[in-house]
Amino acid sequence: MSSNLDKIMKPKSIAVIGASTKEHTIGSDLMKRLQEYKFNGKIYPVNPKGGVIEGLQAYTSVLEIPGEVDLAIIVVNAKFVLDTIDQCHQKGIKGLCIITAGFKETGAEGAEAEKQLLAKVREYGMRCVGPNCLGVVNTHPDIRMDGCFAESLPERGNIGFVSQSGALGGGILNILKDLNLGFAQFISIGNQADVNAETAMEYWENEDDVEQILLYMESIQNPSNFKNLASRISKKKPILALKAGRSAAGASAASSHTGSLAGADKAANALLQQSGVIREYSLKNLFATAKVFANCPIPKGDRVAIITNSGGPGIMATDAVCEYGMQMAKISDATKEKLRSFLPSAASVKNPIDMIASAPIEHYKQTLETVIADENVDMIMVIYLPFLGLKDIDVAKAVMEIKAQYPHKPVIGVFMTKNEFFTKLSDMEVNMPFFMYAEEAADGFNRLNQQRKWMERPQGKVPCYDVDRNKVEKIIKSSIAEGRDQLTTLESIDVLQAYGIRACKYGLATNEEEVATLGNSIGYPVVMKMTSKTTSHKTDVGGVRVNIQSEEQLREEYRDLIAKLTEKGLIDGLEGVIIQEMVKGNREMVCGIATDPQYGPMMMFGLGGVFVEALKDVTFRIAPLTDQDACEMVKSVKAYKLLQGARGTKPADMAQIEETLLRLSQLVNDFKFIDELDINPLLISEKTGEGIAVDGRIKVRLNEAKEALGCECAACSC
Amino acid sequence: MSSNLDKIMKPKSIAVIGASTKEHTIGSDLMKRLQEYKFNGKIYPVNPKGGVIEGLQAYTSVLEIPGEVDLAIIVVNAKFVLDTIDQCHQKGIKGLCIITAGFKETGAEGAEAEKQLLAKVREYGMRCVGPNCLGVVNTHPDIRMDGCFAESLPERGNIGFVSQSGALGGGILNILKDLNLGFAQFISIGNQADVNAETAMEYWENEDDVEQILLYMESIQNPSNFKNLASRISKKKPILALKAGRSAAGASAASSHTGSLAGADKAANALLQQSGVIREYSLKNLFATAKVFANCPIPKGDRVAIITNSGGPGIMATDAVCEYGMQMAKISDATKEKLRSFLPSAASVKNPIDMIASAPIEHYKQTLETVIADENVDMIMVIYLPFLGLKDIDVAKAVMEIKAQYPHKPVIGVFMTKNEFFTKLSDMEVNMPFFMYAEEAADGFNRLNQQRKWMERPQGKVPCYDVDRNKVEKIIKSSIAEGRDQLTTLESIDVLQAYGIRACKYGLATNEEEVATLGNSIGYPVVMKMTSKTTSHKTDVGGVRVNIQSEEQLREEYRDLIAKLTEKGLIDGLEGVIIQEMVKGNREMVCGIATDPQYGPMMMFGLGGVFVEALKDVTFRIAPLTDQDACEMVKSVKAYKLLQGARGTKPADMAQIEETLLRLSQLVNDFKFIDELDINPLLISEKTGEGIAVDGRIKVRLNEAKEALGCECAACSC
Repeated sequence: MSSNLDKIMKPKSIAVIGASTKEHTIGSDLMKRLQEYKFNGKIYPVNPKGGVIEGLQAYTSVLEIPGEVDLAIIVVNAKFVLDTIDQCHQKGIKGLCIITAGFKETGAEGAEAEKQLLAKVREYGMRCVGPNCLGVVNTHPDIRMDGCFAESLPERGNIGFVSQSGALGGGILNILKDLNLGFAQFISIGNQADVNAETAMEYWENEDDVEQILLYMESIQNPSNFKNLASRISKKKPILALKAGRSAAGASAASSHTGSLAGADKAANALLQQSGVIREYSLKNLFATAKVFANCPIPKGDRVAIITNSGGPGIMATDAVCEYGMQMAKISDATKEKLRSFLPSAASVKNPIDMIASAPIEHYKQTLETVIADENVDMIMVIYLPFLGLKDIDVAKAVMEIKAQYPHKPVIGVFMTKNEFFTKLSDMEVNMPFFMYAEEAADGFNRLNQQRKWMERPQGKVPCYDVDRNKVEKIIKSSIAEGRDQLTTLESIDVLQAYGIRACKYGLATNEEEVATLGNSIGYPVVMKMTSKTTSHKTDVGGVRVNIQSEEQLREEYRDLIAKLTEKGLIDGLEGVIIQEMVKGNREMVCGIATDPQYGPMMMFGLGGVFVEALKDVTFRIAPLTDQDACEMVKSVKAYKLLQGARGTKPADMAQIEETLLRLSQLVNDFKFIDELDINPLLISEKTGEGIAVDGRIKVRLNEAKEALGCECAACSC
Repeated sequence: MSSNLDKIMKPKSIAVIGASTKEHTIGSDLMKRLQEYKFNGKIYPVNPKGGVIEGLQAYTSVLEIPGEVDLAIIVVNAKFVLDTIDQCHQKGIKGLCIITAGFKETGAEGAEAEKQLLAKVREYGMRCVGPNCLGVVNTHPDIRMDGCFAESLPERGNIGFVSQSGALGGGILNILKDLNLGFAQFISIGNQADVNAETAMEYWENEDDVEQILLYMESIQNPSNFKNLASRISKKKPILALKAGRSAAGASAASSHTGSLAGADKAANALLQQSGVIREYSLKNLFATAKVFANCPIPKGDRVAIITNSGGPGIMATDAVCEYGMQMAKISDATKEKLRSFLPSAASVKNPIDMIASAPIEHYKQTLETVIADENVDMIMVIYLPFLGLKDIDVAKAVMEIKAQYPHKPVIGVFMTKNEFFTKLSDMEVNMPFFMYAEEAADGFNRLNQQRKWMERPQGKVPCYDVDRNKVEKIIKSSIAEGRDQLTTLESIDVLQAYGIRACKYGLATNEEEVATLGNSIGYPVVMKMTSKTTSHKTDVGGVRVNIQSEEQLREEYRDLIAKLTEKGLIDGLEGVIIQEMVKGNREMVCGIATDPQYGPMMMFGLGGVFVEALKDVTFRIAPLTDQDACEMVKSVKAYKLLQGARGTKPADMAQIEETLLRLSQLVNDFKFIDELDINPLLISEKTGEGIAVDGRIKVRLNEAKEALGCECAACSC
């Protein structure tokens, strides 16, 4: 299906089906907006009653329209929509924008109607925005289409905006002018039966007019497609997203560590991060960031210089810059000398550069001109607090004049002055963003810096390791043959080993003699762990015995375990005990897989052991991982510091740990029915620095697994 | 010294010393502002040239003024200030506001002049604001004093504002009107030679006019006085603070865990928290919160209801409310039924209550009226997105009309509409705050809820335990007699035990035979640790051996240690080895004391062991601690979940851990020269749940300790 939306977004002619003369109806307002905004093509109102609507001859049917029609904007009652689509097809129309509500959002009946609607759209080779949406906008001077029924006319700008909420889209149209922001194009996707955020992004990838993409989303329809598209497009133009609905209950019923820490928002967050999408958590921040991208180039680095006429805001700005981990630029000696040549002696030429309260406009110009030329400076914040006799707008103009000579360095103004100033600005051409507070400018620099880092980030590759896929198939088949969705510890470790993941040496024993023989062959110290088909959290029942130093001790612990389990009535599920190499190390990590119902398999990595759930020092990525993802995962947890080796401990083998994650990613990619997988702990060996899987748990989705592998059991119902 | 600032803040007459006719000078602007704002008393300009200034007869000296003068605002050149103070004294003036700069802020000479200035102020029994400040404001209708040289006249409101930055104070005066905010009183404290934030807070404690206190601070002059005052006053009226300068380098050179994790901002943060001060990190948030406190009562609970005409913002609001840990109110069935009686069927009567886009003003009124009466609801957010035919300002008026009938429940409006709306509001009387975005309203509710919890929080007591103070004195004396600022592990543990802190059983042995005897008497397993006067981080050199199971193993480990230390050339500092009871448990906490150069002794508690510095799961409080502080410390770290006992482990003895913190607090209060103290780990016993000090390090400030305890060594220079 082509992502070309030209018929919808750049129509030469529009039919408004359901146009009306009745005030304050959508059919009336839409006609008004199209005309007020001076649509650069033909408008054909359609209304069964005919007549004149907004000064134009109305047609009683779309079929009566004499000329060709690119786009039909449909506002008729829901029950007429399907027929209307048929007529549009007859008329040869390829673009639809269905504003009419009353489909999926109303329940089962509406959903059925929407399904039929989509079937028609597909059958007729159309593209369709909506239903249940606010409309579409293209502010390009050659198009000038305001196909929305919002109160305000759209402002021209460089933003491509997709809104999943209609009312919100309208609200936004109302306030953008105040923010000095404008759209290139706007699509209210509504129920996104056909066109969704991904379609829009793909369309805008090569629209020069759209220099940044803003998304308001409540859900992501096809996460893996979204990731592919967004990670490519975000390398060319910033994508900003506000994803609402993050407090919705997650996978709270999951039984694994990974599952219980993962949640819908963790998945969305991982997805957006891996896609290079800048996530904002409020509309306010979304627009503030858009304002920055609208008027700033991407910087070369993260070194910020601050120019101010007041100490306090300079300090606050420094605080904010440092808290984002950006650097305060080291002003070069030459620059300092130059600054000293014209600034008063009470001024400070160190960053933040304090020109003191009495700084005249000339000092703003000279100082900015001097600092912006300094090669040690990547971004500049210019702070102005009102001073007697100066006009804020004059200072702003002077600053913009200098800025104009240096288009490649971002400059943000912080003008702590009256609202009037910003109102005045919104009627002017500006070449840099202005905010009221220093923290907003620091936020902006942080986003520019984030985009810079993303653009510089290597693409990464999904490696393919040589693994024993057959062995895994065999293990899982035998488990599902017994109707078990949960593999035993032994099976789990075998699966990991088949995928080349370092797990510790072990063996299974089912009686005291076997236990002793195995212990002696592995060598002490060893660990003894029960393995059971019925008890999943072994430590809770005393089923794990560590640091067993001798055969004698091993026999003793075994007898004690059997006694305890018998006492607790848990002896029946017992398969035996695993005798396992005891890896020494005090750094316990965790890694695993959880499945998000919407986003699919998700990888987790972080601090393990008893700390997992209390400290939540873990990070998530949607599978499959690239090597770059794996590397970032390892570095992004606080426990990375532990891995680096503090206080004389051996640094962990980072490459091996990353490879473990990548092999896990390959595993879940090969066996998509793996529902949950935990390696906890992945113990960092004191000796070698390797991450060694000391315990593992794997759970599959039984029905899917049966389907994928073929079921061989007589007992089950398939 | 009385905190009564009546002469300064409520003067009946003001002398402006340094009044001027020259445009754009402070002496001219100040005269203008005083008159424009219609000061309700006498204004006497003073200028050596006499003449007429702003229509008033100028006096050549303050001594020539015929009537009594309460307040002298001084703007003369710095070199004349001291003489001017003498003259003010002769005239019987008790209130000074010295705007003149050129004192402490300029270096040593200025600091000396400021010292003399303060001496005179004290000698003459005056109170003095400044020097180097912007002035003072009181908007009370009986006073009407604008003693500032900012561009704008102040707006009337309920805020008492203290600014440590003059320029910032001016900037703020300019923007407050736009925010619908006003001052009751404003003090620009400048160099705070005499009057500082504490004086102002204390003065405002009983000023009914001031209903909330805002502080902009770069430093806190007397932290313990601040804490005492603020924690009392904040129970009556909210105190909001913006403390800048948090990125300044902290105590980075400290050698202990506690020291290296503490930093200037940690201390400031702890101090503000213990004082019940609401800390904001940007001016934007400071004013947003002030706007909320200006128009909202303190709620009875944290249950939020959301009323909206658009789904998207309702979801975003829910996200924000939940992320603050507040509750979405459960709307009662009766309320739901009532709502259903007038809302259309497509509306949702569950929280968030979505009246759908077409909601008329009448629905806003009825819905708010219904919901505000529900006893399950503590706070209400009313969201409005523009809808055809409705006027935002009419909706706001309707909402305020209902709100007026329920003064005891906070209501915040979220109106996603044009700036004009807010400009209109700023000229109206409002009874609730309005914001553009849902997140801002959620921020506001969160602050209201924080203030509620603080007001409900028990005051807490600093307990006094029966301890062996003499023993500690003796131990420290013997250490300083040897010129050591660092106590040995043994000494440290003895100190802790003398203060009733549970430490594990131990003994010191200096040869293999002693080692064996001691091991046998304590009972296995034991731990062996070297103790040395020269090596402080024992683990780094292999000086800690754990889980020693028998005499034989103990002897072996001892011989090995001696061999290793000899090899590394570290044998000389060795005092012996400590043989110690081996406490079993896998939960290692840390607690300790660090000394902040400005804020004094600070307590730390959190997750210990190897994790301390990587995970930084620690919390700080300024000593002395109340029982309430100790309880909150323990609960505020993530590791609290571990303490509660997850997966079958024994819950920790919280009361005992809190007591440990309180005893440490008493220790550092009794011995103020303790510079650093670490208990790491404070191991949680698997058996009893107690926190047991397994290792301890104490460092004193040698000179202070000598002075406090009396030095007994012949060698030292004292």
